[in-house]
Amino acid sequence: MYFGVQYYPEQWPESRWPIDAAMMQRAGVNTVRMGEFAWSAYEPREGQIDFRWMDRAIQLLNEHGIRVIMCTCSRTPPPWVFKKYPGVANTRFDGHVNRYGQRYTVGLAHPEFIALAERIDRAVIEHFAGHPGIIGWQVDNEVGGFNDCYCERCLRTFQDYLRDKYGTVERLNQSWGEHFWSFHFSDFDEVPLPANNPQLGLEYRRFMSHLNVAFTRWRSELIHQLDPGKFVTTNFQSFTIKHTDYFKMAEVIDLPGMNHYPPRSPELILDYYRGAKGKMIVLEQLSRLAFCDTGEGWMRLWAYRALAHGACGTIFFRWRTARYGQEQHADGILPHAGQENRRYRELARMGAELKTMGERIDATHVEARVALLMGYESRWAMEAGLDLPDMQGHLDVIRFHEDLLRKNVTTDALDPHGDLSHYQLVIAPRLWLVDEGIAANLRAFVERGGVLCLTAASGVVDEFNKSFDTPRPGPLAEIAGVEISDLSPLEKPVRLSSAVLPALEGAQATVMADEMHPTTAKVLARYASGWRKGLPVLTENRWHGGRVFYLGTVLEGAALSALVGYLLRVAGVQPVLETPPGVRAYQRVGEAERLLFLINENEEPRSLVLPEGWRDAFTGMPVEVVEIGGVDVRILSQSDFQVQ
Amino acid sequence: MYFGVQYYPEQWPESRWPIDAAMMQRAGVNTVRMGEFAWSAYEPREGQIDFRWMDRAIQLLNEHGIRVIMCTCSRTPPPWVFKKYPGVANTRFDGHVNRYGQRYTVGLAHPEFIALAERIDRAVIEHFAGHPGIIGWQVDNEVGGFNDCYCERCLRTFQDYLRDKYGTVERLNQSWGEHFWSFHFSDFDEVPLPANNPQLGLEYRRFMSHLNVAFTRWRSELIHQLDPGKFVTTNFQSFTIKHTDYFKMAEVIDLPGMNHYPPRSPELILDYYRGAKGKMIVLEQLSRLAFCDTGEGWMRLWAYRALAHGACGTIFFRWRTARYGQEQHADGILPHAGQENRRYRELARMGAELKTMGERIDATHVEARVALLMGYESRWAMEAGLDLPDMQGHLDVIRFHEDLLRKNVTTDALDPHGDLSHYQLVIAPRLWLVDEGIAANLRAFVERGGVLCLTAASGVVDEFNKSFDTPRPGPLAEIAGVEISDLSPLEKPVRLSSAVLPALEGAQATVMADEMHPTTAKVLARYASGWRKGLPVLTENRWHGGRVFYLGTVLEGAALSALVGYLLRVAGVQPVLETPPGVRAYQRVGEAERLLFLINENEEPRSLVLPEGWRDAFTGMPVEVVEIGGVDVRILSQSDFQVQ
Amino acid sequence: MYFGVQYYPEQWPESRWPIDAAMMQRAGVNTVRMGEFAWSAYEPREGQIDFRWMDRAIQLLNEHGIRVIMCTCSRTPPPWVFKKYPGVANTRFDGHVNRYGQRYTVGLAHPEFIALAERIDRAVIEHFAGHPGIIGWQVDNEVGGFNDCYCERCLRTFQDYLRDKYGTVERLNQSWGEHFWSFHFSDFDEVPLPANNPQLGLEYRRFMSHLNVAFTRWRSELIHQLDPGKFVTTNFQSFTIKHTDYFKMAEVIDLPGMNHYPPRSPELILDYYRGAKGKMIVLEQLSRLAFCDTGEGWMRLWAYRALAHGACGTIFFRWRTARYGQEQHADGILPHAGQENRRYRELARMGAELKTMGERIDATHVEARVALLMGYESRWAMEAGLDLPDMQGHLDVIRFHEDLLRKNVTTDALDPHGDLSHYQLVIAPRLWLVDEGIAANLRAFVERGGVLCLTAASGVVDEFNKSFDTPRPGPLAEIAGVEISDLSPLEKPVRLSSAVLPALEGAQATVMADEMHPTTAKVLARYASGWRKGLPVLTENRWHGGRVFYLGTVLEGAALSALVGYLLRVAGVQPVLETPPGVRAYQRVGEAERLLFLINENEEPRSLVLPEGWRDAFTGMPVEVVEIGGVDVRILSQSDFQVQ
Repeated sequence: MYFGVQYYPEQWPESRWPIDAAMMQRAGVNTVRMGEFAWSAYEPREGQIDFRWMDRAIQLLNEHGIRVIMCTCSRTPPPWVFKKYPGVANTRFDGHVNRYGQRYTVGLAHPEFIALAERIDRAVIEHFAGHPGIIGWQVDNEVGGFNDCYCERCLRTFQDYLRDKYGTVERLNQSWGEHFWSFHFSDFDEVPLPANNPQLGLEYRRFMSHLNVAFTRWRSELIHQLDPGKFVTTNFQSFTIKHTDYFKMAEVIDLPGMNHYPPRSPELILDYYRGAKGKMIVLEQLSRLAFCDTGEGWMRLWAYRALAHGACGTIFFRWRTARYGQEQHADGILPHAGQENRRYRELARMGAELKTMGERIDATHVEARVALLMGYESRWAMEAGLDLPDMQGHLDVIRFHEDLLRKNVTTDALDPHGDLSHYQLVIAPRLWLVDEGIAANLRAFVERGGVLCLTAASGVVDEFNKSFDTPRPGPLAEIAGVEISDLSPLEKPVRLSSAVLPALEGAQATVMADEMHPTTAKVLARYASGWRKGLPVLTENRWHGGRVFYLGTVLEGAALSALVGYLLRVAGVQPVLETPPGVRAYQRVGEAERLLFLINENEEPRSLVLPEGWRDAFTGMPVEVVEIGGVDVRILSQSDFQVQ
Repeated sequence: MYFGVQYYPEQWPESRWPIDAAMMQRAGVNTVRMGEFAWSAYEPREGQIDFRWMDRAIQLLNEHGIRVIMCTCSRTPPPWVFKKYPGVANTRFDGHVNRYGQRYTVGLAHPEFIALAERIDRAVIEHFAGHPGIIGWQVDNEVGGFNDCYCERCLRTFQDYLRDKYGTVERLNQSWGEHFWSFHFSDFDEVPLPANNPQLGLEYRRFMSHLNVAFTRWRSELIHQLDPGKFVTTNFQSFTIKHTDYFKMAEVIDLPGMNHYPPRSPELILDYYRGAKGKMIVLEQLSRLAFCDTGEGWMRLWAYRALAHGACGTIFFRWRTARYGQEQHADGILPHAGQENRRYRELARMGAELKTMGERIDATHVEARVALLMGYESRWAMEAGLDLPDMQGHLDVIRFHEDLLRKNVTTDALDPHGDLSHYQLVIAPRLWLVDEGIAANLRAFVERGGVLCLTAASGVVDEFNKSFDTPRPGPLAEIAGVEISDLSPLEKPVRLSSAVLPALEGAQATVMADEMHPTTAKVLARYASGWRKGLPVLTENRWHGGRVFYLGTVLEGAALSALVGYLLRVAGVQPVLETPPGVRAYQRVGEAERLLFLINENEEPRSLVLPEGWRDAFTGMPVEVVEIGGVDVRILSQSDFQVQ
Repeated sequence: MYFGVQYYPEQWPESRWPIDAAMMQRAGVNTVRMGEFAWSAYEPREGQIDFRWMDRAIQLLNEHGIRVIMCTCSRTPPPWVFKKYPGVANTRFDGHVNRYGQRYTVGLAHPEFIALAERIDRAVIEHFAGHPGIIGWQVDNEVGGFNDCYCERCLRTFQDYLRDKYGTVERLNQSWGEHFWSFHFSDFDEVPLPANNPQLGLEYRRFMSHLNVAFTRWRSELIHQLDPGKFVTTNFQSFTIKHTDYFKMAEVIDLPGMNHYPPRSPELILDYYRGAKGKMIVLEQLSRLAFCDTGEGWMRLWAYRALAHGACGTIFFRWRTARYGQEQHADGILPHAGQENRRYRELARMGAELKTMGERIDATHVEARVALLMGYESRWAMEAGLDLPDMQGHLDVIRFHEDLLRKNVTTDALDPHGDLSHYQLVIAPRLWLVDEGIAANLRAFVERGGVLCLTAASGVVDEFNKSFDTPRPGPLAEIAGVEISDLSPLEKPVRLSSAVLPALEGAQATVMADEMHPTTAKVLARYASGWRKGLPVLTENRWHGGRVFYLGTVLEGAALSALVGYLLRVAGVQPVLETPPGVRAYQRVGEAERLLFLINENEEPRSLVLPEGWRDAFTGMPVEVVEIGGVDVRILSQSDFQVQ
């Protein structure tokens, strides 16, 4: 279990380092992450590289029993780079070249940047490779956003990428569709930067994602070559649509890492970032993020939430609040003045707990029978084609995930190309883009007897973001047993009626409505008001061994909960436990024991009666009625059990 | 009666065309509009022009009894134009050159564009001239907006335009006013692009409008020369302030065309775009515009609304929803997959009805005794000088128009330079700019015995957007019998009092207040609260044979309705009919019969008792009590009548 | 007493001037301000300078008993300057060069501008120096905002300024902090334009302020050299954060001037702009600013408000509303048409009153025992480091000031470096930045026995905008007797509890909370709910002869009023008088008499019983019960009194 903090020795007097190391050790810290913004400290003037200060910092930390995750640092160059090589800067969508003064303002495809970045990152990797106090590597920081570039040089690189991908311009024209608003190319060099064409928009986004993955791959491969045996990670960022396809980036690293900033980001991302590889580390855990008001206990609670979702470590951002710079008034365990405070005491409490529990947690993992599907390409395609904030697909994914959380149902969140062989229930909300791989994956899942639930606005476009010329949901129409002719927004909610699911009687459809025409599916619920009265809204289709549900709208609250409950019953999936409101139960399973994390998000204590067989994980004493303090966590253990 | 759709054969496989043509024919379509974005399909590489595919499409449609309105297409060039001739692109107000990737991103005054555009448009006109299956021409698409340009070359063209118009720089200085913030020119070449100077702002807007009209005139004249006998139209756009002066553009075409996108645009534009020439065609009728939720019946209802207002045709946008491109997720009768749907059935229903009614409707026209005045120059001048959204003049025009609609009073909407000889009542809300022509036109109307109503903020500026140095309403002060010293916003509503119009007692003045000083007018209503208590708010002045009312504020709802009712009584104007709420009655009058359109906008049926003499227009049976279904239309006829 | 208007003879026909001068004289006008935008009128073509028209205007006004404040005019050049010397234009933060067409769009450090501006301003000063009809000078108009520039040339000038200030780049690195996001310089020429780094951001703002002060100093010194004996003023602008440090600018002029635009600006600025020098003139008094609705009486009331706060004159903006240009529809006493109106009559009423009272008011001044502190650097530092609109320090200053106004307590508002020797109570809300001078100033004040109140988020950063590495409030921690470890926003209000101040029981803390740890201070109030329950929120510390209160949050309304009342009692400060709601009492004190201004902001009359000794200032009759009309002012006098 990696437990620790980000540390920036280059920002503090060396005389302070021993105090910091001793305080960390006292708090149970065993790991620090360092170096992701240290280029200026390694090389304050061009060519004068000096790693000795970092060597001393590592040495000191190691002496206090603390291991290091070392970062590469090239995406945040020092001022001399921008002064001497202005071509490194990237250009925003609006055509403005980013003015230096921030981090990450470089174009990953710019030759000047590539040369300088590979030089410094190679120097860092060569220097620190083989150091026994370094246990793993992080490729830079938050790779995946920020480096988008819309300059003429990147346009030419993009045109080359299109040449490689499409071969002939005729194939590109056919793939994207011809002559809408005279959009048709006689040569690849006529393709412009994206404005708002949906096909070009998606492809350029893919190209930007590709550059980020390639940047990460180059460093990952070099680390594996020069420092074999160390893991490579990088931190996936907060959950917004513009980022790189982390499903693809996970393929080029060993251990997906992430920022974990609740409540700014939904709990979903813990399952989603773990999903890609089945494992995950939190590389930036909120201490007190960007000026929010966090009372006692929440910092520890949120860190345990990540562990409960499968994290193998938690690194708090950051050891001490910066005295200057853009994050000067946020982010840090210690305050500016460096004295102990309540956050330090909270850190130390968790550190002490993990001395007992760390290895035991590491020996377990998350096991789910339900998968939620969400792909970056669907989100990009929708944004490029129909940028309506309320309709964004991930909102529905979050809704389903929150309902599953309230029910304490362990869930994986995956890319729709992911391996579905372990699941009984797969929910794929708003699967806007369906390529051949996705269609085949879902068909195979249903064929094997799986229960699949699709929702409104699925199967709309192909891999090029072109609408299907067969009725929606396109290649999924057969397994869904329904054809859809139109998608409309719902300007106000519409009431539903259902004999099969009485809880849907009177419930409200919101946001949007598919106009559904069942072919082989049976209707489970219909609209009960407005001009849609009597039209189907929820269908079920038996196909081969499985069943496919299609929800032609958006449900919320109790209505959504009823649907999810029905799907779980049909698929035969059980929750971990039933808990009172505001208390969540999570389970990790290992060979020797399984662990139950009970997290109470209420400000007041809660108690609940446990099934037989659970013991306090720390004391080993049997527990029948467990009491959990306000904003607190209890961990229980069971060694005699059967996997569901 | 032109009844049909926009069709884009270049966006679909040729094998699909016969299916489309047959489906259209079955739905009663007799007209399609084609070609406005087809430059890339005609000339995919520079110089390789091929019209044969369009010849085949016309041929096929003609064989199904469908005629063609052919468009010119140069404002949306293909990518090779932007690649090889980057100078065609226009520059936005913020100084950014438009990046290619949209439509209309060209500067109409740029020499490269002029050369390329005249070449392709001439080629199109020469090729299709004389084709018997083509009944008329549309100049490009939505000419009037979008092409504004703020580049240095256009600035020089503008300076030349100023030289032509003003002759000497002294005259320009005097016309615009001298030395405010040191604004004073020693040479035309010092005039800058507009920032926020009101005089410069208005003149630049006029210049942009002038370029749009000139673009249209060149094509209209060429068509008349090469294809005599065919009508020329173009589609006026949605109702925003930035567009070209369509009153001037109407002078260079034969038949004003328009986009009709309710509920996004007010019903007013049907009267206003007809107003310019007394006739009008709807070239883009909403089928399901840009992602809105439209239930059964509304598509047909809105199309009939346009016919009731005098349209000679309705062309739905578009036959089938695009599978790609910027309008991929909106706009189309058929869905992406191309199968029949409820919108197709609605189209076919109307098509069948127009087989009976089309020619009879064409034999009638709209006759109004009331005119609402609104000029582009007033709106531009106000925007350039006092850009307060709540005060924009067209808002008051819409308020008056909606009240007249609710009263079923047939109304023309005209430019204030328009011919007023046919009217009994003229309402000119917020006539901000009054040039000599407008002043003379209104004086003559009143002199002839007309009833004129002016409202707050009228007669403020002259043709150069300079405030009058005589009391407002400037050249109208004499006929209004009132002088105004100040215009203020009303931060909250103020109550009124009136002995003459009891319905105004307690009503509220909103938005703004003129400080009125009657000279010869008598006061009809006064303010009843606040510091304005006792000051006049509504006056009436008898002048020669006529009367002039001046409302010094904004009225809404019942108060406005009371004023309008009073004006109608004074002017002796009758409504078409009285109808229940949500039911509108419109009349078109011909030599053989007059037609009554009853449009029920309620979701439920309504019935009403008719005066004697009306018969069902389809069956010829007399009707005493007419029932109109929810979201439905009834047409009645009367052949024995006298024009009001 | 300077009483008058801005006048722009260059914008009106010379034939009108005699009418204007006669109307002014009739209204009691004794002073006009002229010439701040007159460059184009002096020099319509390069090199052809002609001041004769202005000579004639001065002559005419003088003949009507009206004196002139003459302005320099170089920040608003005529078009030929921008055409021939485009380098004068400044560049906005977003990198766009300002397009000509507005005022003030020049870079004060640009060599072309400096040469042209010094030439015309020197010519103006040389020409008008010594004119007996000119009583003083105004340096340009609204110097302090608008001229910020972010071009490469200004960057180099800024780098030179840094070289001068810091000497070595090492010192700059240490002052600003090193290596955050690789921010560290190996040479001054690597320092970029500001993006969002707090240290760079503050220093660039200081540099911009420095340029504005230098611009003003150059002109002020030249005037003093060429026209000795005349006062130099300039008008400080509306109250926003971006402006120049007027405390520094006041040092280079004789008489601080200001724009006074209630209700857009808070009453605070009257005390704050007077504060710098203890005297002040209103150079732009609202007549009817930018399209607001102002009823009878307010114009005069607001002008008296400024006099009550210590102004030595009031110049209304502007004589007659412009017929053209950007301010065409606002700002003016006479309407466009130039006839007498109610604002003219209001002006004349006040003119008549000041004939009696002007010199007597001039013989008095404002005397305060309470000072409110607010510094530009604190506001800039906070904005550069933590740009949260709700937390901006001046909001709290305004809250305290409004409460003191409601209590009729005379207050000075000062820069925190100001002389505090006259005060009993000093309130320093949100003193974010504390440099050594400020710390010493406050320590000395408390040492002398003063009562000081600090509020949340004070003592956070040093002069370089770097957070202190000792507990907050940093250098004030000792006198406050409290240490603060964290600053958090309050997402919702938190209830308080206090035995000492019962009025705080149940009151609400809002906006933010300091986490307070008293060292020597005693706790006066604590939080009573949420996770902060029991933590201190208000402390009092006795230090040497004085007392320091620290309020760790934001209070509003009755809670703030209770705290202010307590502070006044502790400090022994008395109000001028107690008045009914909406009536304010202000006092000016002279050797011969003291004057009491009673201003009734209610629309209805109010009366109050006065203490003995007051007489009507106009009639000299004793007054016991004074009646003040709605939106009206009464002035009372007392000649037999003792200064408090």
